[in-house]
Amino acid sequence: MPKISSKALRMPASPIRKLVPFADAAKKRGTKIYHLNIGQPDIETPSTMLNAIKNSDIKVVEYSNSAGIESYRKKLAEYYKSHRINVEYTDILITTGGSEALQFAFNTCFNPGDEVIIPEPFYANYNGFATAGDIVVKPVVSGIETGFALPPISDFEKVITPKTKGILICNPGNPTGYLYSRAELEALKALVLKYDLFLLADEVYREFCYDGREYVSVFHLDGLDNNVVLLDSISKRYSACGARIGAFITKNKEVLNAALKFAQARLSPPTFGQIGAEAALDTPKEYFDKVNKEYTERRNFLVNELNKIPGVHCPMPGGAFYCIAKLPVDDSDVFCQWLLESFSHEGQTVMMAPASGFYSGGGKGKDEVRLAYVLNRSDLEKAVTCLREALKKYPGSTLQAKS
Amino acid sequence: MPKISSKALRMPASPIRKLVPFADAAKKRGTKIYHLNIGQPDIETPSTMLNAIKNSDIKVVEYSNSAGIESYRKKLAEYYKSHRINVEYTDILITTGGSEALQFAFNTCFNPGDEVIIPEPFYANYNGFATAGDIVVKPVVSGIETGFALPPISDFEKVITPKTKGILICNPGNPTGYLYSRAELEALKALVLKYDLFLLADEVYREFCYDGREYVSVFHLDGLDNNVVLLDSISKRYSACGARIGAFITKNKEVLNAALKFAQARLSPPTFGQIGAEAALDTPKEYFDKVNKEYTERRNFLVNELNKIPGVHCPMPGGAFYCIAKLPVDDSDVFCQWLLESFSHEGQTVMMAPASGFYSGGGKGKDEVRLAYVLNRSDLEKAVTCLREALKKYPGSTLQAKS
Repeated sequence: MPKISSKALRMPASPIRKLVPFADAAKKRGTKIYHLNIGQPDIETPSTMLNAIKNSDIKVVEYSNSAGIESYRKKLAEYYKSHRINVEYTDILITTGGSEALQFAFNTCFNPGDEVIIPEPFYANYNGFATAGDIVVKPVVSGIETGFALPPISDFEKVITPKTKGILICNPGNPTGYLYSRAELEALKALVLKYDLFLLADEVYREFCYDGREYVSVFHLDGLDNNVVLLDSISKRYSACGARIGAFITKNKEVLNAALKFAQARLSPPTFGQIGAEAALDTPKEYFDKVNKEYTERRNFLVNELNKIPGVHCPMPGGAFYCIAKLPVDDSDVFCQWLLESFSHEGQTVMMAPASGFYSGGGKGKDEVRLAYVLNRSDLEKAVTCLREALKKYPGSTLQAKS
Repeated sequence: MPKISSKALRMPASPIRKLVPFADAAKKRGTKIYHLNIGQPDIETPSTMLNAIKNSDIKVVEYSNSAGIESYRKKLAEYYKSHRINVEYTDILITTGGSEALQFAFNTCFNPGDEVIIPEPFYANYNGFATAGDIVVKPVVSGIETGFALPPISDFEKVITPKTKGILICNPGNPTGYLYSRAELEALKALVLKYDLFLLADEVYREFCYDGREYVSVFHLDGLDNNVVLLDSISKRYSACGARIGAFITKNKEVLNAALKFAQARLSPPTFGQIGAEAALDTPKEYFDKVNKEYTERRNFLVNELNKIPGVHCPMPGGAFYCIAKLPVDDSDVFCQWLLESFSHEGQTVMMAPASGFYSGGGKGKDEVRLAYVLNRSDLEKAVTCLREALKKYPGSTLQAKS
């Protein structure tokens, strides 16, 4: 029997999905589960988008341009300009989700063995794509005590080697919800220029900034055109995760042309998703205002309630729809599994993502979980109640151990 | 300015697309172009498929299961059974086109530096994905003189090294249209078992076998369950290239579970394409009968007409919708460019794919072109006329040089 690749053996399983078998078992026992474990919003996709797909009069579902449908790219460039991201449609490749934009960036900017610095905790699939490309992730730790602010630049410099080719950030951040300030991004800019690095920025949560705080894009920084690659997706913006439409954006023509070769190899991004995405650009501002208000309320409720639970600490995030909470437990992997396997409160329980999967290893994040506030207020309330009750009963609680 | 990766520099540009700028220029001059250069059929997508997408009542376009929508996978397993491919839905991962199925297979079965043997000429993007994965393609040449039959097994054995991990075939073949016989596949089976190799089979043209000839799948071979990975796509079957729906199929659970980790990293295949693909499985047999009849007529017409042109030789293909023709020219890259830049016949010209891009290099295929018979009979007729007239006038014609 032929052996699978060592790369496949090293490939991490998704930390969000490893609890799924336990969730399935809980459901079979009749326990209702509140899912705070995955960033799948319950918000409706704009009807503008759905109607465009329903009304399309395609007779032959042809390959689109490998770079994406031109009319969509042109309209998308206008969208970016409205966010003061001054790009032309020729700077944009439409991708199959943000995932593919990341793959293109890794393939184009990094060789096997090259190193990319990522502030951790970070989006778990960065690890997966790095493994697939034999790229080495060098983490710099941002801690819960600073609310996951950008680590000091000296921490970045400590891990820079001749193999360091780039820095990858997510802003607003998944899994932390942290929103980088202009000062933090300016510090990154100086670092990137000093060491001649690529700066890859995943900004898919652009629309989700709260309390009137400013979203600063890497494209708002002057003099970084050769270094910056923006990774984007419509998944969260329009609650259209399944459409699988993202974008790869750079002013660096050498990078763009190289990425286009990878795009041509896979032929084209999905046609129906692109049709919907183009129409979605006409989504009225009211949609986003309403969504923003909804998430702000959910965030405020969830974070405030979490911080009321004895032993729990959760910084207030500035963006995205995630937060990371420190819990009074010894091992959040075990706790999250216990919640599904052995706990229920009034026939209900809560599913969260253990934070260890968002760190690069070494036991970090063992007492933290990520919660996605993608449920309505009433369900969030029940989910928090489950967590509160569970922590009272959990045998591995560090509070109980101390008492 | 940071440097792009050496992998990106090595990444081949698409041979099908490199003539596009010349085609654009020809169109600007008012020359009509008959496109025989790309496998984009003009056949209509089944209305069953399009209507399912139009009538879907999705409110939130969610991520689907990373392995694909379960109801689609279950129904798809029945489709395979109808082709005597005995797989269960748990043996199937739905992919974003056949392209992603190939990527999953390369990542799962091969490490960087590993070797895969591919009979050439082969589908050009195999080269692209091998480059992306730092995998080494070892070609074995199938010649036009044998109509692109499987090369002798001794030719395979000559290139086998300790780094050889698999063999990749395309059956029916793109770009040759060759349909492997059961004897040829049995010979491959013995080879694969002898050296403990993976056998990856791209069978996306399954529905396009002509003259009542038997399609033999790698899944029709006994005792190969641990070795076989089937790569599939609905692009050609339903003329739905833009839907980006394919499949990765194996009975080897270690391979399937490893591929699932790559699938989870990219979250899910496109939802709308899957909805359409599931409905497309109800496409009536009459659709395929009609399509098959149409392609058979086109093939017969094109190949017969090509062989009537002095100096042209084109074997009659048994499947797919491509043929490779040997032309009386010194360099088909130059000739195909000349057709767009410097030639027109009654305001028209023809665009073909130079075959050199389907070989792994070394000047092979320099006097060959690939033609896709994806145009209606009347347009095919005009395209052949253009080619006939062009060869009379082409300065690089080897016939004229001799006369």
